[in-house]
Amino acid sequence: MLTLPPAVETRAGLQWRRAAAPDLVLERPLAEEAAVGILYDGRPHAVLMATPEDVEDLAIGFTLSERIASAEQIAGVGLAVLEAGVQVDIRLTPAGARSRARSRVRSMEGRSSCGLCGVERLSAAVRPLGAVAASRPVSRTSIERALDALDEAQTLGRLTRAMHAAAFAGPEGELLIVREDVGRHNALDKLIGAVSRAGLDPGEGFCLITSRCSYEMVDKAAVAGFPVLVAISAPTALAIRKAQEANIALIALARADGAVLFTGGERIAP
Amino acid sequence: MLTLPPAVETRAGLQWRRAAAPDLVLERPLAEEAAVGILYDGRPHAVLMATPEDVEDLAIGFTLSERIASAEQIAGVGLAVLEAGVQVDIRLTPAGARSRARSRVRSMEGRSSCGLCGVERLSAAVRPLGAVAASRPVSRTSIERALDALDEAQTLGRLTRAMHAAAFAGPEGELLIVREDVGRHNALDKLIGAVSRAGLDPGEGFCLITSRCSYEMVDKAAVAGFPVLVAISAPTALAIRKAQEANIALIALARADGAVLFTGGERIAP
Repeated sequence: MLTLPPAVETRAGLQWRRAAAPDLVLERPLAEEAAVGILYDGRPHAVLMATPEDVEDLAIGFTLSERIASAEQIAGVGLAVLEAGVQVDIRLTPAGARSRARSRVRSMEGRSSCGLCGVERLSAAVRPLGAVAASRPVSRTSIERALDALDEAQTLGRLTRAMHAAAFAGPEGELLIVREDVGRHNALDKLIGAVSRAGLDPGEGFCLITSRCSYEMVDKAAVAGFPVLVAISAPTALAIRKAQEANIALIALARADGAVLFTGGERIAP
Repeated sequence: MLTLPPAVETRAGLQWRRAAAPDLVLERPLAEEAAVGILYDGRPHAVLMATPEDVEDLAIGFTLSERIASAEQIAGVGLAVLEAGVQVDIRLTPAGARSRARSRVRSMEGRSSCGLCGVERLSAAVRPLGAVAASRPVSRTSIERALDALDEAQTLGRLTRAMHAAAFAGPEGELLIVREDVGRHNALDKLIGAVSRAGLDPGEGFCLITSRCSYEMVDKAAVAGFPVLVAISAPTALAIRKAQEANIALIALARADGAVLFTGGERIAP
């Protein structure tokens, strides 16, 4: 039985308090990071620094987000826990191996929020996006319901208050899958991998992220096929432009009292 | 005169409010991202997605953090603004060119928080750190003074509420340099580059970051030579272990009413 390193570790710290209150030693659960190596058919491809939980989802989501191979081209996943970290070996079908060879050569080692590595040219940094296929509109009520449930659903985040989460909600706003990581890119890749492995249709629901929404988050959502992306924090201006290009509804600054729709209003029902 | 793309762009959004309040259109300043290409002696090395401000600092800080060359091995910096993004060309001395050749081959394109790219092996993902040279202890009062000044000093952050900042404070807690970016790794690299270009001694002060403190933030601080690292948000457990290895005092969860010292107490005066 393979055991991953713990995702959370409790450490002691000395809490100093202003206003002349005495210091005290406190124990606090902290997010852990581990090196997660991704291999294809036994050959090392990338190393990400990530929270060591749901690492198979991470590797598969990374494979999809980076356009290395499609879900149908993934034949299996193997896991090895080593002293230096965790290795996930993805076995590709013959078509997948050809797809990987065609994909841009990226010899890379990522970090908790990495993923465009290895492409040297400036103009290739922001990749063109196709339009995400039309879906039925998502209601505001569903989005609000999903947001209300998200805090409770963040198992590691509630412990550490230092995790990002990404979630997939069904049409009524019910949370179907939630994934967490210290890095926001990893959290979304884990979600994308999990949605794919569960055989869910990304067009039949919407995606939530607890983090700010930079360009790469929209890029990942577009490749995964999420028609609606809801972010707790702010988007960048480039993220909005790319969401328009991909025909993704982008809702951000989602708080208890409301949210801001930046683009794609036709995908949202009143 | 070269003009960088704007770091902030104001976009309109439709704010929907719960509790049956009417929708309203609001304009909000948002962080911008641009592709920043880093070249050495005219040869492309990496592309980062970053806030297009202080890009020379970013490129120099990246060069130092990634152990590509030392500050003495940087002969000059050239800037070009292209349609696809910004290019920063770093001219290396002959010794710098040799250092770059010796550094691990990393053909990479980063993103807003990327930097370990290109090293394929798991065991190389977490790099060993030397101890940061001893400095005189920093007082709690100085740290509190710097923290109190930091919010006001975040020019872009106050506009957008979506930027990370990194700052270098002198022994009395006076903020000497502040740098901002949508990505926390970029913000710290910008600071490291700016401290180096200003000829400041990183051992004569301390470093503050507004973000959570993952392993790579400690790695960058160690290479830059900051003896004390103060983070607004939580550290990871690995970050604490690496701070111990580098003999860096790590203070985190710094809030208005106090902070938590996780390691390196001998570097903090009461």
